[in-house]
Amino acid sequence: VPRRRDPSPAGAGLVIVGGDAAGMSAAAEARRADPALRITVLERGPDVAYAACGIPYWIAGEVDDAGALIAHDAEYFRRERGIEVRTGAEAVAVDPEARRVTTAGGEQVAYDDLVIATGARPILPPIPGADLPGVVALRDLESARRIQALLDGREAPRALIVGSGPVGLEMAEALCARGAAVDVVELAPRLLPALPEAIAEPVAEAVAGACAAVHLGTTLERIVAHADGAGLVATIDGRDARYDVVLLGVGVVPNAELAAEAGCALGDRGAILVDRRGRTSVEGIWAAGDCATAWQRQLGRQRWIPFATTANAQGRVTGSNVAGRPRRFAGVLGSWVSTAYGVGFGSTGLDVDAAADAGFRPEALHRDGRDRSGYIPGARPVRVRLVWDGPTGRLLGGQVSGRGEVATQLHVISTALAGGLTVGELAEVDMGYVPPLSALRGPVERAAAAAIGDAA
Amino acid sequence: VPRRRDPSPAGAGLVIVGGDAAGMSAAAEARRADPALRITVLERGPDVAYAACGIPYWIAGEVDDAGALIAHDAEYFRRERGIEVRTGAEAVAVDPEARRVTTAGGEQVAYDDLVIATGARPILPPIPGADLPGVVALRDLESARRIQALLDGREAPRALIVGSGPVGLEMAEALCARGAAVDVVELAPRLLPALPEAIAEPVAEAVAGACAAVHLGTTLERIVAHADGAGLVATIDGRDARYDVVLLGVGVVPNAELAAEAGCALGDRGAILVDRRGRTSVEGIWAAGDCATAWQRQLGRQRWIPFATTANAQGRVTGSNVAGRPRRFAGVLGSWVSTAYGVGFGSTGLDVDAAADAGFRPEALHRDGRDRSGYIPGARPVRVRLVWDGPTGRLLGGQVSGRGEVATQLHVISTALAGGLTVGELAEVDMGYVPPLSALRGPVERAAAAAIGDAA
Repeated sequence: VPRRRDPSPAGAGLVIVGGDAAGMSAAAEARRADPALRITVLERGPDVAYAACGIPYWIAGEVDDAGALIAHDAEYFRRERGIEVRTGAEAVAVDPEARRVTTAGGEQVAYDDLVIATGARPILPPIPGADLPGVVALRDLESARRIQALLDGREAPRALIVGSGPVGLEMAEALCARGAAVDVVELAPRLLPALPEAIAEPVAEAVAGACAAVHLGTTLERIVAHADGAGLVATIDGRDARYDVVLLGVGVVPNAELAAEAGCALGDRGAILVDRRGRTSVEGIWAAGDCATAWQRQLGRQRWIPFATTANAQGRVTGSNVAGRPRRFAGVLGSWVSTAYGVGFGSTGLDVDAAADAGFRPEALHRDGRDRSGYIPGARPVRVRLVWDGPTGRLLGGQVSGRGEVATQLHVISTALAGGLTVGELAEVDMGYVPPLSALRGPVERAAAAAIGDAA
Repeated sequence: VPRRRDPSPAGAGLVIVGGDAAGMSAAAEARRADPALRITVLERGPDVAYAACGIPYWIAGEVDDAGALIAHDAEYFRRERGIEVRTGAEAVAVDPEARRVTTAGGEQVAYDDLVIATGARPILPPIPGADLPGVVALRDLESARRIQALLDGREAPRALIVGSGPVGLEMAEALCARGAAVDVVELAPRLLPALPEAIAEPVAEAVAGACAAVHLGTTLERIVAHADGAGLVATIDGRDARYDVVLLGVGVVPNAELAAEAGCALGDRGAILVDRRGRTSVEGIWAAGDCATAWQRQLGRQRWIPFATTANAQGRVTGSNVAGRPRRFAGVLGSWVSTAYGVGFGSTGLDVDAAADAGFRPEALHRDGRDRSGYIPGARPVRVRLVWDGPTGRLLGGQVSGRGEVATQLHVISTALAGGLTVGELAEVDMGYVPPLSALRGPVERAAAAAIGDAA
């Protein structure tokens, strides 16, 4: 842990840039570790500590109010945790020698330790009109409010979603729930190109039966404002169509500029390179969350894996270290899960390409199972794909999809990865069974049994 | 693996006594391993390969037909698997020297290898009238048919359940669903005495709001036939009440007599002692399932752990070994799960007493969580209790209960046990998250974090 210049409460203390998952986790954990530490959070937006992953359910109307997504407001942190949270305060420069942050307002904020938790931002595709009002890249509560404003009062809005990844599909479902007619354009020849085809298939089937029309292998060429001033016209494969809102869901990039300009080394995919304690290459500067790399425990490397779970876990570790309670990040497996149109889907660990790159000799298969005994009404399908190292049998990763309870099935696979199980060991765990809650051999056990050539 | 006297198809081959979970798993696996092996199953009842765990859902009317609980009938095994299944054939004696089984009908059946899979039978409490017609101990499809016959045509039947363990509560719910008025008598001062109080509590709350009346710390003194010839009169703590059916759910004992009389050594709780390949102490005789011990992997000992999952896994291993494909049973964790009145509950691994007996220094705590993000409508509570070894942090066991998805939460704990994780490692697994399917920190992660003194 770097030397702290002034550990006394009278010092400049800890300054955190960014007040969402990683930043507020770091703040809260630093407070737990050091009740006397001065902690200041600079957040450029109006909100802190909100559940960005919950935005689609607010858009859908399933969650009534954006307030439900906000765990605590700035006042709570000030009053209950002694953490000074300043919203509308954008950090624009860091002087690592003077240990000082400059805000957009020209203010100088001194620090002993600085945690950069600036998150990631959506990629703007290089097409004309991507910056028009009415084109929204989902990022934070502010962008969600813009979507709400574009939908409010319209009876049958038309929405275009660019990209069929998890966020695009979650938003497609949310917009359908709001009564919108939704088009999804995807450059790739199939939905959810980041998942193996067998796993994406049940999702594609569910989307095909829904209100959204999916256009695969299709290019959005340009967007222009509609001649009458309301709405947008998008040109897709040469055809024009009018929309009330265009949502960009083609991925994110790390907000690493502030750190890079302060001299911090960058790592995988341009994210701020940190070590397992959260330290950047510059003394006194730490980073966590979507702007930073994270320890991928299977690869034993710092990789860019921007998920809320990663940000929270990494924020906690970093906050603990800053406050003088040393802790090393256990690392992540790249686990994520999503759901659209009633079908859950997700992934954990390495898929075959990443595994082969890492020197394994991966094998993979998938099997269909159910989340309870087949004769119980309401038993739902879960497809599980497992990836393992052929010579050793070591489990390397897994993907799931289906209408059944996929998230916890995925958690079982993640836990097996954390335990270093082989597929054979996974098949033999001994999981409790009762017909209305589980299957005698669940989907994960079936796939694992098949992987070792056993009867499932 | 013991020498097989005559491995040719012309020999006596493999004889299996008992045609349910363990017996049929052994038969199927032996067939997979050796397509030419002669395999004969002797089943004393009329059914084979049925899902005994599904019986409450047939009684409840959730499953229409007992046929749905039967995976395959005798004819299927004969035709499709080349396994001769003889129902109504009760084995009454084994001559291990002559390698011969005698049936109740006086027939002699020769074997090269014998697998004893005779299961367990319910305990008859030592009270007058426990053997009356109308008193049923749930065991097999035949006993379930007796219950159906006692209920059929009655509009508002009255049922008494003796014992508030998992089977008693599953049946209480099933009988409520059939419109019965249900009394449950339990000798212990609380429901589900086999589970820790904090875990049993959500179940007790659900039962309290249901059609069943639970009488704790209460003794059933005797049962007599009603004077008018229909129904029974049970005397409970000195008061008489009339019932149409009395169900005994006070536990089971292993059917080990056949093996004991053949000279097989007995182990824990009087079950047939086997090794990790399924061998008994007598050459040529194997055993599997509820009648036999099973390797408890945490204790490194043979224990009696009569669950369907154990029986299936052990049956497969034994069948494989008998057929000459050597395999060692990975063992079990004692995982089980059940559900009553909408609340699931279960356990895996060691609780504090068993852990202390095994030389650990167990600690335990429980935490409440939800199966999805709290702001999502339909998020349901899950309580998780973890048991770990204080000095090393090694996870030793866990119990769950709640209206949420408890079974797969329990599977996560079982998988962590199989991987030898510490509670700290369990807290840091990295589990995928999306608000409608999981919580940012799920119930297991929260309990594990609390166990290491972290913020949950």
